[in-house]
Amino acid sequence: MPELRQNIITREWVIIATERARRPDEFIRPKKAVDPVPAFEPGCAFCPGNESMSAVETYRVADRDGWQVRVVENKFPALSREGDRVRRIDGVYRSMSGVGFHEVVVEHRRHDLSPALYSVEDLSRILVAYKERYRQIRKDTRVEAIIIFKNHGESAGTSLAHPHSQIAATPIVPTQVRHRLDEAIRFFDETGECVFCTTLRREVADRIRIVASTDSFVAFIPFAALSPFHLWIFPVRHCSSFDEIEEYEITDLAVTLRTVLGKLYYGLNDPDYNFSIRSIPAREGEREYFHWYLTVIPRIVRTAGFEIGSGMYINTSLPEESARFLRGVQIQ
Amino acid sequence: MPELRQNIITREWVIIATERARRPDEFIRPKKAVDPVPAFEPGCAFCPGNESMSAVETYRVADRDGWQVRVVENKFPALSREGDRVRRIDGVYRSMSGVGFHEVVVEHRRHDLSPALYSVEDLSRILVAYKERYRQIRKDTRVEAIIIFKNHGESAGTSLAHPHSQIAATPIVPTQVRHRLDEAIRFFDETGECVFCTTLRREVADRIRIVASTDSFVAFIPFAALSPFHLWIFPVRHCSSFDEIEEYEITDLAVTLRTVLGKLYYGLNDPDYNFSIRSIPAREGEREYFHWYLTVIPRIVRTAGFEIGSGMYINTSLPEESARFLRGVQIQ
Repeated sequence: MPELRQNIITREWVIIATERARRPDEFIRPKKAVDPVPAFEPGCAFCPGNESMSAVETYRVADRDGWQVRVVENKFPALSREGDRVRRIDGVYRSMSGVGFHEVVVEHRRHDLSPALYSVEDLSRILVAYKERYRQIRKDTRVEAIIIFKNHGESAGTSLAHPHSQIAATPIVPTQVRHRLDEAIRFFDETGECVFCTTLRREVADRIRIVASTDSFVAFIPFAALSPFHLWIFPVRHCSSFDEIEEYEITDLAVTLRTVLGKLYYGLNDPDYNFSIRSIPAREGEREYFHWYLTVIPRIVRTAGFEIGSGMYINTSLPEESARFLRGVQIQ
Repeated sequence: MPELRQNIITREWVIIATERARRPDEFIRPKKAVDPVPAFEPGCAFCPGNESMSAVETYRVADRDGWQVRVVENKFPALSREGDRVRRIDGVYRSMSGVGFHEVVVEHRRHDLSPALYSVEDLSRILVAYKERYRQIRKDTRVEAIIIFKNHGESAGTSLAHPHSQIAATPIVPTQVRHRLDEAIRFFDETGECVFCTTLRREVADRIRIVASTDSFVAFIPFAALSPFHLWIFPVRHCSSFDEIEEYEITDLAVTLRTVLGKLYYGLNDPDYNFSIRSIPAREGEREYFHWYLTVIPRIVRTAGFEIGSGMYINTSLPEESARFLRGVQIQ
């Protein structure tokens, strides 16, 4: 019989569809002939030497070759950095000026490198860039939420080959974020504990859904994973805001992320994926009830009308089997 | 400057990304060479004559040729109709037996017909099938929510050519549905009015986002449309549960839906889309604060990491322009 599981953190239900479940290896991406991507692409705004083609630079890790990581403004930003927050209320029509930030993190000089093949040093550098921009942007009091995310591959919503991620900062707290905070507060009020710490402790004790871990980070497939190989990476130390990450944690997160992305790459043949850092809203301080984390969502299956109509997901994989499969994948 | 708009019904914010906005005609699907689909496919379980290939039939509109609409159980159901609702609580792990219903509505005898080309009679027949199955399934007290939805085309999550829609009934109220109810109740408590009726009255007065209407239904692009050509079809008469639809309303809804699907088909070259009927949870009766409706979401753009990380959408079209464009599309 199928099983419904509830995500204790979001309160969302997912259907683990046993009748239509597939084995982990059935999710391996078919090999396809693709044109080789060059290491340098003359027309790419993110390739070294083409810096003038991109918008204003906001951060750079320089080296003798020029740079290793750059952060630049998005040329077609979804939010504008100039202007005031102006709210308009006209009956049922509620709107606000679209002020905020929308930046692009150029992760690497190489045009063709998959993030799964980055070194720990490469990843650490990128995470430091995230942290520094997060910290700077957070100082702007117009900003209520900062979302760091990556789109890898076409199914994940990118058409740009050069490896990059994005930082968006919104002048409102998104409703989804608000709902999750409410649930975290409710759990804290009921139990006196952080729901994330409690979940992590239990997952570590049970081991069956753990994929990888270091001293400060644990990667696992959630009990109520939304979709095949949906992963969470939790910091072990309770901390609400991503920009409070410590130096030693950056290295550990880089190691964990490299393992996770590598296992997806070698185990499932480089699937498309999104990842995103979920942090407390920008104006909140450290809170006992909220714990930042990183979520990775491989885009292996499509959402359809059921998900749109209900907000529930149908997962055709078993989280425990997917975790066991990934644990067995060797990274080269 | 970009504009943030808040959907008064869901409280979700959307970014209307003016800097990257495209004209309505830029969303027209490129013509592509596709293999012609036959009117009858010998291997298709939904084609006439192949009835024994599908699972148990739960509803049929018979005619002298055999049938015009059939509803059958899904062969690989996401939920099982046998069994009790059993809830398991083990610390942070919450689960429930996956009982419920998962049925397929075979909309037409023809294997190759696009729903946009159905007659009003075809659509009325399908809507009656939805209503009858909704009404029957609702009697089962294990059912808390009934979701009727359609996946049209590959981007919308279907791989089956024969035109069909689905009915799923879950043993819990999905969190998304619960949140929307909460918001509707809050609006009612604050104003004494139904948020849907209030929105509809205002949209009708303003006219700029209206796409089509009949005496009993109005189709419009929401002020805070999530994505290009996202549409709502609201019944004019306040009514909470879809299965309370009256006979005269079925005809009007068929006319409205035919117009909307036709405008998408001819205006945007048969885009993939999902539609879904949003109704009050199955165990609730008629309520002053909740109003059922139908939502149509063309799958023209992909969701990416920003949507996953924030729950907010970036819409690269202007709802008013999209509505004007669709109003101008002639249906053949």
